[in-house]
Amino acid sequence: MRVLMLNGPNLNLLGTRQPDVYGATTLADIEQMCRTHDPDAQMSFVQSNHEGAMIDAIHAAKTDHDGIILNAGAYTHTSVALHDALASVEVPCVEVHLSNIHAREPFRNHSYIAPVALGQIAGFGAQGYLMALDALRLHLVD
Amino acid sequence: MRVLMLNGPNLNLLGTRQPDVYGATTLADIEQMCRTHDPDAQMSFVQSNHEGAMIDAIHAAKTDHDGIILNAGAYTHTSVALHDALASVEVPCVEVHLSNIHAREPFRNHSYIAPVALGQIAGFGAQGYLMALDALRLHLVD
Amino acid sequence: MRVLMLNGPNLNLLGTRQPDVYGATTLADIEQMCRTHDPDAQMSFVQSNHEGAMIDAIHAAKTDHDGIILNAGAYTHTSVALHDALASVEVPCVEVHLSNIHAREPFRNHSYIAPVALGQIAGFGAQGYLMALDALRLHLVD
Amino acid sequence: MRVLMLNGPNLNLLGTRQPDVYGATTLADIEQMCRTHDPDAQMSFVQSNHEGAMIDAIHAAKTDHDGIILNAGAYTHTSVALHDALASVEVPCVEVHLSNIHAREPFRNHSYIAPVALGQIAGFGAQGYLMALDALRLHLVD
Amino acid sequence: MRVLMLNGPNLNLLGTRQPDVYGATTLADIEQMCRTHDPDAQMSFVQSNHEGAMIDAIHAAKTDHDGIILNAGAYTHTSVALHDALASVEVPCVEVHLSNIHAREPFRNHSYIAPVALGQIAGFGAQGYLMALDALRLHLVD
Amino acid sequence: MRVLMLNGPNLNLLGTRQPDVYGATTLADIEQMCRTHDPDAQMSFVQSNHEGAMIDAIHAAKTDHDGIILNAGAYTHTSVALHDALASVEVPCVEVHLSNIHAREPFRNHSYIAPVALGQIAGFGAQGYLMALDALRLHLVD
Amino acid sequence: MRVLMLNGPNLNLLGTRQPDVYGATTLADIEQMCRTHDPDAQMSFVQSNHEGAMIDAIHAAKTDHDGIILNAGAYTHTSVALHDALASVEVPCVEVHLSNIHAREPFRNHSYIAPVALGQIAGFGAQGYLMALDALRLHLVD
Amino acid sequence: MRVLMLNGPNLNLLGTRQPDVYGATTLADIEQMCRTHDPDAQMSFVQSNHEGAMIDAIHAAKTDHDGIILNAGAYTHTSVALHDALASVEVPCVEVHLSNIHAREPFRNHSYIAPVALGQIAGFGAQGYLMALDALRLHLVD
Amino acid sequence: MRVLMLNGPNLNLLGTRQPDVYGATTLADIEQMCRTHDPDAQMSFVQSNHEGAMIDAIHAAKTDHDGIILNAGAYTHTSVALHDALASVEVPCVEVHLSNIHAREPFRNHSYIAPVALGQIAGFGAQGYLMALDALRLHLVD
Amino acid sequence: MRVLMLNGPNLNLLGTRQPDVYGATTLADIEQMCRTHDPDAQMSFVQSNHEGAMIDAIHAAKTDHDGIILNAGAYTHTSVALHDALASVEVPCVEVHLSNIHAREPFRNHSYIAPVALGQIAGFGAQGYLMALDALRLHLVD
Amino acid sequence: MRVLMLNGPNLNLLGTRQPDVYGATTLADIEQMCRTHDPDAQMSFVQSNHEGAMIDAIHAAKTDHDGIILNAGAYTHTSVALHDALASVEVPCVEVHLSNIHAREPFRNHSYIAPVALGQIAGFGAQGYLMALDALRLHLVD
Amino acid sequence: MRVLMLNGPNLNLLGTRQPDVYGATTLADIEQMCRTHDPDAQMSFVQSNHEGAMIDAIHAAKTDHDGIILNAGAYTHTSVALHDALASVEVPCVEVHLSNIHAREPFRNHSYIAPVALGQIAGFGAQGYLMALDALRLHLVD
Repeated sequence: MRVLMLNGPNLNLLGTRQPDVYGATTLADIEQMCRTHDPDAQMSFVQSNHEGAMIDAIHAAKTDHDGIILNAGAYTHTSVALHDALASVEVPCVEVHLSNIHAREPFRNHSYIAPVALGQIAGFGAQGYLMALDALRLHLVD
Repeated sequence: MRVLMLNGPNLNLLGTRQPDVYGATTLADIEQMCRTHDPDAQMSFVQSNHEGAMIDAIHAAKTDHDGIILNAGAYTHTSVALHDALASVEVPCVEVHLSNIHAREPFRNHSYIAPVALGQIAGFGAQGYLMALDALRLHLVD
Repeated sequence: MRVLMLNGPNLNLLGTRQPDVYGATTLADIEQMCRTHDPDAQMSFVQSNHEGAMIDAIHAAKTDHDGIILNAGAYTHTSVALHDALASVEVPCVEVHLSNIHAREPFRNHSYIAPVALGQIAGFGAQGYLMALDALRLHLVD
Repeated sequence: MRVLMLNGPNLNLLGTRQPDVYGATTLADIEQMCRTHDPDAQMSFVQSNHEGAMIDAIHAAKTDHDGIILNAGAYTHTSVALHDALASVEVPCVEVHLSNIHAREPFRNHSYIAPVALGQIAGFGAQGYLMALDALRLHLVD
Repeated sequence: MRVLMLNGPNLNLLGTRQPDVYGATTLADIEQMCRTHDPDAQMSFVQSNHEGAMIDAIHAAKTDHDGIILNAGAYTHTSVALHDALASVEVPCVEVHLSNIHAREPFRNHSYIAPVALGQIAGFGAQGYLMALDALRLHLVD
Repeated sequence: MRVLMLNGPNLNLLGTRQPDVYGATTLADIEQMCRTHDPDAQMSFVQSNHEGAMIDAIHAAKTDHDGIILNAGAYTHTSVALHDALASVEVPCVEVHLSNIHAREPFRNHSYIAPVALGQIAGFGAQGYLMALDALRLHLVD
Repeated sequence: MRVLMLNGPNLNLLGTRQPDVYGATTLADIEQMCRTHDPDAQMSFVQSNHEGAMIDAIHAAKTDHDGIILNAGAYTHTSVALHDALASVEVPCVEVHLSNIHAREPFRNHSYIAPVALGQIAGFGAQGYLMALDALRLHLVD
Repeated sequence: MRVLMLNGPNLNLLGTRQPDVYGATTLADIEQMCRTHDPDAQMSFVQSNHEGAMIDAIHAAKTDHDGIILNAGAYTHTSVALHDALASVEVPCVEVHLSNIHAREPFRNHSYIAPVALGQIAGFGAQGYLMALDALRLHLVD
Repeated sequence: MRVLMLNGPNLNLLGTRQPDVYGATTLADIEQMCRTHDPDAQMSFVQSNHEGAMIDAIHAAKTDHDGIILNAGAYTHTSVALHDALASVEVPCVEVHLSNIHAREPFRNHSYIAPVALGQIAGFGAQGYLMALDALRLHLVD
Repeated sequence: MRVLMLNGPNLNLLGTRQPDVYGATTLADIEQMCRTHDPDAQMSFVQSNHEGAMIDAIHAAKTDHDGIILNAGAYTHTSVALHDALASVEVPCVEVHLSNIHAREPFRNHSYIAPVALGQIAGFGAQGYLMALDALRLHLVD
Repeated sequence: MRVLMLNGPNLNLLGTRQPDVYGATTLADIEQMCRTHDPDAQMSFVQSNHEGAMIDAIHAAKTDHDGIILNAGAYTHTSVALHDALASVEVPCVEVHLSNIHAREPFRNHSYIAPVALGQIAGFGAQGYLMALDALRLHLVD
Repeated sequence: MRVLMLNGPNLNLLGTRQPDVYGATTLADIEQMCRTHDPDAQMSFVQSNHEGAMIDAIHAAKTDHDGIILNAGAYTHTSVALHDALASVEVPCVEVHLSNIHAREPFRNHSYIAPVALGQIAGFGAQGYLMALDALRLHLVD
């Protein structure tokens, strides 16, 4: 199982910003947690603050990966282009959010990713990525 | 870890209705899957089509359980009373939905449960309950 | 033809409340009118003020009845759960309202029942049930 | 009982358009069904694609008819003028729709006719006209 | 001063419908009142229930009249086409309504005529036409 | 006929501000025009930029005047208090606006005065006051 | 004076949940306070988390009580059925809320109870019930 | 306990306007009722139709009074300035309305006062002021 | 290729109204341009200000034409009936607008024609009809 | 350069209310700061809680001042009348707010002043007035 | 005639994604079709998934091209920045969409490009680019 | 004081586009004005049309700068990602706009930057940057 874990804007700051709020776990830690959680998965990790670069990565996933774990960050709420990119490549995608976006400001309640994702996991912090990995494996096996 | 798994309206039909759509997994199967997945968890299973009965169950959880896994079904979108019940008992709650409610009719996109839940898992079918169990255990351990 | 006639909240008061407005016809009268109108129909009559009890009755109809005549009363406008119950059992359903809900307060103009019903009859008082019976019979014969 | 059955835009195509969807019943068939269903009713049949012509017909009904059966088609959703015409002539009117307009696009959910009609029948195809005839007779007898 | 007085749908019923509400003044009476009020005005009177016929009349006014007094009735609230017709012919137009449309149902509060009219007179019954005549004369003299 | 002509905020600037737009007619000119137009009317003229002072004036009109001509200026769109004042005194009121408020910014399209006024005259400049005077006289005579 | 005091969902937890926020006063305490406050009133106390049970209680009040004090809790904001139940029985009802619902989340600002209640008391905690008792007595005496 | 009872626009007309609707109780009567109801309270009575004067009175209350009973009349629904005045002085305030504003026009359902008041009493006529006095005393004693 | 070019309200004025804005090209000129542009197309030209007449023309196209070029003018934004007519006849239709309706007033941004048209061309003046002709030919050839 | 600094409702409390939040700077301090910051400016200082008095002051500025610095406080969000006053006098105006109104409650995000002001300065406390003075001088010099 | 054909996000996948839906025509094919269709046009082809890169390209067009053919893809519906870029460079622009965006999801019905484009062509697939080329040439010649 | 001045999309065109509207001042001029205005400030100047590049620059500011002056151009109205970037780095930020965005199209009235900025300066052209510099210095000194 080849998986692209794609993280969007501001997620590169994870662990170093407001550690009292978001914890000290960094993206690198999460990557290591994923590798440990599912050693058989062949994972690629991409983080970008650029919407265009995220689209490029999704396009590349069409041939290179069997599934996508996507935390599109703030672009979740504004990007029709990411929606279309996922619809175009037709690679199974699991949507992840560190915080419970449905318990925050109204503009974070809507997701353009959701209609083109298998499902959504929100509010479980770093663990959400591991849950996504489990879900993706089960989906690809079925 | 004592867990209340509370399922709302129409979920009693699981497995017997539209098996080609929802699969043949019944609520009883899910209960068995949960027991197998986390044998150390002490689980109670409640399903009701009555909003009031669900509130009663949540109230009882205050003393009897350490966490709640809640699939409120259609009441997710309409019940302020369930929102208030969860806020009152202050027992950690994970929200689960079989389908990806964010990819369906607009009236299913909003959840009154979310603002009083740890997080939300939607779209992964029966597996979502297992993911919720994992999340709850991790939360209670932390 | 086995028919469940299911009446929702406050309809038990029919005939005894504001008789100058709603007339003196009671639910029992309506039941008798139905039996007279279509003696060959095997009818069950359920009235409940409880949303959950109505869902239970709809579930039971899956095996016990060929069609449902449903006046969900005020739950028509608020109950996603009844919508889902009807969608789950896939028993043909005719929606009835005593008053013309489209000529009343805006919150009565929308029906969650309509998208899962054969059709809607509103504004014809007790006669609406007889019309529904005719419509159901024709549908089941076709 | 003198009845005007007034059909609006595009209903002249009934039976010839998409017969697999709408069936092979034509307006002429429906007229015949009405005559058979209630031989004592003296019926006039008018169909027009012109909103103005429909208003004219309603005006004429003031002196010529005891009741109106109206399927205003698409004008149902846009015509304040038909609303006013019915309010002006004060002839009892039953609103009919072949399809269940409450289960279709949102712009078909609202009716300008409803507030000035006895009641609404939607979703029962050609049978709806017969049901309307029954309702009108009962209303005029009462 | 050549004036077209153009009345829209249902205004032909004036005086004969609900005389206790709208009074016994007919359109013919109003025409006579206008002639008496401003004998020097050369007036044409058109009433139609057809939106298209009203557009035709407005077009004809471009060459035949110096001003228009328009009571578009229910089309006031729904007709972009009448709006465009008035904008095209560029003949000064005074908008009249018998009732105070701003004190009625919300759907009567908006006028598509207003943005292309000199001004609006609403709520003064038949007298509104005479006021419009005064306003038009003053405008054309200025 | 004792008439209160009540003008609201900024109308004191009439004639001196943007004379190329609003003309050189001042409020004093309008008062003179009114006196000339209907010499038998006993008129009082009040202008205030203070919402409270306008309410006071309307209260006083209850005993001192037979009718009110009101141009509430910008308060037209925001003042529930003026609405209530007019409803309380029950003195017939004609609403006047110099400009055609229905052809301007959306926030000028709604009037809190309209539901408690006989009718509305908008867009005819200073002449609107004379038209209002005519309408008021006719109303009081009837 | 026979009074039904009807409390809705989650109010059974009063005094035991978040005592630092809601105080230590229980429903039983409030009942005692009411008895002390107005010893002549013959009071019945019903609390239910079930919307249907609340409707049943209101129906029963038609014959058994002279007035209702209703804190419908979360159902205040969602229940058309309770609205209809009150409208049907025509027993005078005073609406009470412990917290100031107009100072909380927007979904708590609207009440379906208000249009069928004498008045509303919100934000005064347990004292609100005593105020309601005073108001009811005065109303029934008048 | 020093109390400012502040009444807003049009409330000076109480008792003299529409006595069949609002009763014959005047503001002076209410003041006397308050003095009788709570003889120990030191009360000041201010009524104004001027929003600015009401703000001035609230400011003065900061040093002169222990609590405010406020019926802001129509300004309830439109005045952010009164909201800010109350927030600035931080004197406990009880909001009173004679009528049940939640059962009237939609524009009367929202209150800018509520978020800065202890609570709201609406629909109990003059008695509401006495209830407010009770509530204020209890609050200040606590 | 037999083509119906159907033009709606006010388009008969083309070339004669505001020539500085819309140019001096008349509908007759456009017809000639079309004939020159695609001499092999057998074209019928209909213009009407009557919505009903436009519906009639579309109905007739079912048997007489292979495609429709439709500029519905103002009816584009208000006519559900034209939408239904096109859906009924199932003749390929290209939607044309002289001006760029998406750059104008909001009420011109929505089209009821679009969902039942191949595509939309807006903003290119008379040339838009020639572009539509090209598009129709290509579609019918494919 | 003659400048009117006009402050609206509740700003008289500056420095004395919630000094921990708003600081101890009073309006008098701000006036002194302005005089020190730009000694050559001839400044007038007006504060009022009365919307009408603010309009009067703006009118007077037409002849007496070269520019206005306006903090309309809560009237910013509700006063069309102040909007019109500024539009009428055509004196350059700079809009100031102590707090960042765009980061507060939604009803504070909209300004009726903005469309008739040179620009807006929000969120910089007392310093905002000095910034406004700089901006005004630069504007008047240009 | 120097033309920039600028294609936005996901359009690089054309021809290779869902060929049964979008056809097998690639962007390269479209470029060749354009060159064949108008051999005299000097065309540059840019495709980017990056909003910023598209802005850069539009800026460059100011000096390098006479016109722009723009299919902004998903950015059409979300990018104010592209709107501003086009407004800044003032190079004539024709908006193209492969699909009929007005017949798809509501969030695709609005275009930020339209108000700064000559016109819009939507729904004609690859042919739309050729139509745009024709329109641009005619515009530049005029 | 180390300051990042970050300018967003299309601001690179300043001075060269529509100089009659925006003046001839270029970004380079503004940078020079800033250096002259506050020679002690150590300033970095970044302009980008790429949302991602702006996020990168804000991230870098966390360690390199004491404050940010941000004119996010069109991204102001659409970018949740920039909002989050500013919230993450917690560097004081002043929001600047050349034009008065509150006096322009509705879609320019809302700012995602404002809730995470000290304050907003809009409408003062190039001078706004100098005002921002003053505000930032005062804030950092306090």
